[in-house]
Amino acid sequence: MQRTDRATTRLPMGLDDVLEAARRLDGVGIRTPVLTSRTLDKRAGGRIFLKAENFQRGGAFKFRGAYNKISSLPPGTGVASYSSGNHAQAVALAAAMVGSSAVIVMPEDAPEQKVEATRGYGAEVVFYDRYREDRDEIGRKLATERGLTLVPPYEDPLVMAGQGTAALELLEDVPSLDALLTPVGGGGLMAGCATVARALFPGLQIFGVETDSANDTYLSFRKGERVTIPPPPTIADGIRLTTPGALTFPILQRHLTDMLLVSDAEVRTTVRFLALRARIVVEPTGAVPAAAVLGKHLPLGPGARVGVVLSGGNIEPSQLIDIRKG
Amino acid sequence: MQRTDRATTRLPMGLDDVLEAARRLDGVGIRTPVLTSRTLDKRAGGRIFLKAENFQRGGAFKFRGAYNKISSLPPGTGVASYSSGNHAQAVALAAAMVGSSAVIVMPEDAPEQKVEATRGYGAEVVFYDRYREDRDEIGRKLATERGLTLVPPYEDPLVMAGQGTAALELLEDVPSLDALLTPVGGGGLMAGCATVARALFPGLQIFGVETDSANDTYLSFRKGERVTIPPPPTIADGIRLTTPGALTFPILQRHLTDMLLVSDAEVRTTVRFLALRARIVVEPTGAVPAAAVLGKHLPLGPGARVGVVLSGGNIEPSQLIDIRKG
Repeated sequence: MQRTDRATTRLPMGLDDVLEAARRLDGVGIRTPVLTSRTLDKRAGGRIFLKAENFQRGGAFKFRGAYNKISSLPPGTGVASYSSGNHAQAVALAAAMVGSSAVIVMPEDAPEQKVEATRGYGAEVVFYDRYREDRDEIGRKLATERGLTLVPPYEDPLVMAGQGTAALELLEDVPSLDALLTPVGGGGLMAGCATVARALFPGLQIFGVETDSANDTYLSFRKGERVTIPPPPTIADGIRLTTPGALTFPILQRHLTDMLLVSDAEVRTTVRFLALRARIVVEPTGAVPAAAVLGKHLPLGPGARVGVVLSGGNIEPSQLIDIRKG
Repeated sequence: MQRTDRATTRLPMGLDDVLEAARRLDGVGIRTPVLTSRTLDKRAGGRIFLKAENFQRGGAFKFRGAYNKISSLPPGTGVASYSSGNHAQAVALAAAMVGSSAVIVMPEDAPEQKVEATRGYGAEVVFYDRYREDRDEIGRKLATERGLTLVPPYEDPLVMAGQGTAALELLEDVPSLDALLTPVGGGGLMAGCATVARALFPGLQIFGVETDSANDTYLSFRKGERVTIPPPPTIADGIRLTTPGALTFPILQRHLTDMLLVSDAEVRTTVRFLALRARIVVEPTGAVPAAAVLGKHLPLGPGARVGVVLSGGNIEPSQLIDIRKG
């Protein structure tokens, strides 16, 4: 019965939105390569296809959603964002590319490198005190005062549709997959990817992956409704969220086969493995679904063909220290 | 006058050999992606195309030459090699793929990791004492006693032709290059690449790159004959050679525009840059030509389109330590 209920709920986006996003991104975003590694295949006991979004503009899939959103706005619309991570960079970059101004709200103690990178894209950085001020409120106030449009990191159909183009490209390049995995933070990447994957390949198994402590979507998926957890201490900073998105979660509920969990230790091992054996630099969040594959957490037989979205590669130099160990 | 002399010397290989190698490698080797990075372009003042041989089987271009050579031998021919680096791995891997046995001569104090990797490909490892024994002699003796065919790392037309397929693919993917760069050790990679590049694009500028201390080919190119230098202490272990190859050097003399030099410090900076900004892991030797681009050592105007062969990605974890600095 629940299945029927879920299936009849109207979702905020569909395949057409992803196809439209793909047209907007054509020749603008990087069609990132799909990489394979025999060593990884052997270790995982399957055939693994890595969609290398660490090579995307701005170093993460976030460019796809930000560009799709911003390029859909009336020309000259100023935009604002209040993420301090890959989304903020993506908004700054996409805004610069369409000739719009961007204001990024960042904590006063943000790493100098990130502040400089954001300014490097031509965006204005507005600081806030993250111990005293609320970033959402500041962002909204700023948007109202200056007539800017907020570009949400995931709670937006155009953003989700943009992220879905990563899976669209992967499925075009490798049409015979048995399963598809992405990390799940707010759920925007997975919402877009699951939408396109389910529409094109109804029998495909789709797994979202989180770390043990950042298990808000895992718990929500099990319970059948959004739950909130305390701020998680996971190494995977891109998925340090406390609750799934209100718009993204119903899409995940509808399309996902299951949610999987990996440990922070597995993520560290995977970052190391990908650097030394697959020769690519992936940030901890980006390595989360690959960790599920390496740790054999998938309920799939040997030889299964698994697509994995490596979501980003913006790693702090200090996070590569672990590479020396072991 | 010298130019005329050089042009009339009969060379040991030509374009047809590379095209034949490409047919042998088709579907066997990885057609490695060509990566671009806006950040790199900005820094270099041109448009840079990175041929990612760090993603090749065995982690380096060496697979191309080894496979081309070994697959050309009569079926069942046992092979031997006495390199301790990427070439040995490539020989072990290529031999396993064609069903031949391989014996690799390695120093007793070779890193356990490399010994295990070589054995992992099914090769027999024979150790020698590198302070008391001569590896060439041991290799030759072993080959004679056991009826094995030695697969030289560069002094062989089939090996050179195999390496040339890297440039062939790059030039197919990006036909409008102004310049092509590779590192130069024994000269096998550059001999193959320069042969195909010069044949297909007569006006292309071709630059070989070494580090300051490993400048044997630089000096030889200037002098017009092979010179020998003391064992160089460079961080780029793949080009720690004391003299160019007797077969490779005339090819380099014929085709190269010039030889360029970079410092070890520039190589370290480039390994770091490629990891953190281009998100790929490249070993120091593989980063040598990219260092020439980042250091603006090329006599080219702004906006030039430059192809760079990133020759390999088999880095020791300790070599990534530098990544934390700066």
